[in-house]
Amino acid sequence: MDLSGTAVALDGLGVEGGFDVLHEGIRLAAADGIALRVFGPAAKIDSGLSGVEVIDSTDQITNDDDPVPSVRSRPDSSIVRAVADVTEGNSDAVVSLGSTGATMAAATFGLKRSKGVKRPALAAQVPLPGRTVLFLDIGANVEVRAQHLVQFAWLGAAFSKSVLGVEKPEVGLLSVGEEAGKGREEVVEAHAALVGATEFDFIGNVEGRDLPAGNADVIVTDGFTGNVVTKALEGTVKRVVGEISAAARKNPVSAAGGLLLKPALGGLRRDLHPDTTGGAILLGLRKTAVVGHGSSGPEGVANAIRVAARAARVDAPGLTEEMLHRVGADRGSIDSGSGV
Amino acid sequence: MDLSGTAVALDGLGVEGGFDVLHEGIRLAAADGIALRVFGPAAKIDSGLSGVEVIDSTDQITNDDDPVPSVRSRPDSSIVRAVADVTEGNSDAVVSLGSTGATMAAATFGLKRSKGVKRPALAAQVPLPGRTVLFLDIGANVEVRAQHLVQFAWLGAAFSKSVLGVEKPEVGLLSVGEEAGKGREEVVEAHAALVGATEFDFIGNVEGRDLPAGNADVIVTDGFTGNVVTKALEGTVKRVVGEISAAARKNPVSAAGGLLLKPALGGLRRDLHPDTTGGAILLGLRKTAVVGHGSSGPEGVANAIRVAARAARVDAPGLTEEMLHRVGADRGSIDSGSGV
Repeated sequence: MDLSGTAVALDGLGVEGGFDVLHEGIRLAAADGIALRVFGPAAKIDSGLSGVEVIDSTDQITNDDDPVPSVRSRPDSSIVRAVADVTEGNSDAVVSLGSTGATMAAATFGLKRSKGVKRPALAAQVPLPGRTVLFLDIGANVEVRAQHLVQFAWLGAAFSKSVLGVEKPEVGLLSVGEEAGKGREEVVEAHAALVGATEFDFIGNVEGRDLPAGNADVIVTDGFTGNVVTKALEGTVKRVVGEISAAARKNPVSAAGGLLLKPALGGLRRDLHPDTTGGAILLGLRKTAVVGHGSSGPEGVANAIRVAARAARVDAPGLTEEMLHRVGADRGSIDSGSGV
Repeated sequence: MDLSGTAVALDGLGVEGGFDVLHEGIRLAAADGIALRVFGPAAKIDSGLSGVEVIDSTDQITNDDDPVPSVRSRPDSSIVRAVADVTEGNSDAVVSLGSTGATMAAATFGLKRSKGVKRPALAAQVPLPGRTVLFLDIGANVEVRAQHLVQFAWLGAAFSKSVLGVEKPEVGLLSVGEEAGKGREEVVEAHAALVGATEFDFIGNVEGRDLPAGNADVIVTDGFTGNVVTKALEGTVKRVVGEISAAARKNPVSAAGGLLLKPALGGLRRDLHPDTTGGAILLGLRKTAVVGHGSSGPEGVANAIRVAARAARVDAPGLTEEMLHRVGADRGSIDSGSGV
């Protein structure tokens, strides 16, 4: 996808690796032709790159700050200014590697929800060999009702179609068993409402193992379960790869073999790591917002920017809104399931 | 621990690998001196082993049967008879490799809850290098209130102490962030009630990544989240190990290295696989019940029997009840948090 000319507002504060990592990420993204407007300390960010503009901004909302009041009371913070840059029409999408809570709050207030959307959801792209699974909600809503889960399915399917290019996404609902009656009350209700959806292929309930197996294009759950599962998955991959590397080092022949396995090990860590696709996307807003992991390296920073640019380029929010309108979500009929 | 003389009632139906796997598992457990009373088809189970008695039983409640009505209406089914064998005092504990739902239902009805326990919970032992994490509830209760989570902490801590030998277990509450205020309402409430527990070390909220990292002896969650996370973890380990094995085979030198890595790969799959410790333990009942995975191999079958025998040997249910009594759980004071 040609991304040249697409403008991304980047919150330049919050990358744990520091400004060197940020710079390198910016350089990689700018090399793709993406126009960047970076909100961060002008004294520390090199603005010498073509297509990169730095707008001096030094107030950082961190993980220690309470997101909602901070966003409301600090209009000069880098994240609030980056979001405003989109609202004002200077940029097409916003990206932050800082506090997820602050980014969600700033984006939800500033970019507004799409018509008919009750709760924006945070979606991770899990890039499994052979298939990328869009997994949502991974933390925007710790408590949900059935209607929210139903909307997450639509939001995920719309993104999968428009940005990931999946013609008719397979959408699964995460539960404790495949049968329609298994799971929490809201899951059972959402299942019933999703049966018969025509814009995507509702494959019914999926289980925990279906996520790493890549058995769906979109997997829907509440933000509590999604958050815990995502972090458990990340931690498990890290641990397994680490243990195998350690085992390989123990013995000269397996060390040589391990050395040759290294690209595979690194690739796996990358492939199975939900962050390295460029962070999570906030779905259900009128414009695109992406939250990268604070611990991202340069490639992670660049990927977060690329995902945002790609979504803005195809107008993912517009296509999502259109789909929701077509099925009646913006008239409330998805709530009862009658629209699906 | 000397397990000789401890009697275990084994549901002999439900091992997916068939009677050869069952036999071999029985042989391994019997070799430890455990007395086995096996409820299964006498025509198919070799009763020639010393210390093994086969009681003819051919009615199997499967995963396709609705657990509660099936258990109620089929007193001659192998699982109901195995549970009754404990109630009648012939065996000290019951083990099944069949339907988890049927085993939970049969055990809860037959063995009864310990005094003060509102909801028995299913606990998995996750054997990480360096530490075994007891993770509960992994599926007995898909919907819980705060008081149930609080009890799960006590049940887990009691098992960790009495069976796993951890003097003062570190107990964590699974949530979406470390701060006390993070998570669903019932999690926040349970957190407040657990602060100040004296019989174990409440380390506060833990996150998804703390499970594979082994950052607690006991991790508490609801049965929906626990089930999904356990299956996601199993699936991830299987996938990562599989991908690495495949990568190793691609190239002669790494293939040689991979061959030498094989014990490490296999060990990891085993170490990080929650089932292979011998299945899940149903906590909160007056006698011990263990549910092994249907896909267990002989070692899995034997381990399920060993875990049950060990728990019965130390009288884990009695010690648990005693601890609950000491802190006032059997008088209801754990509900309000005042007993903790």
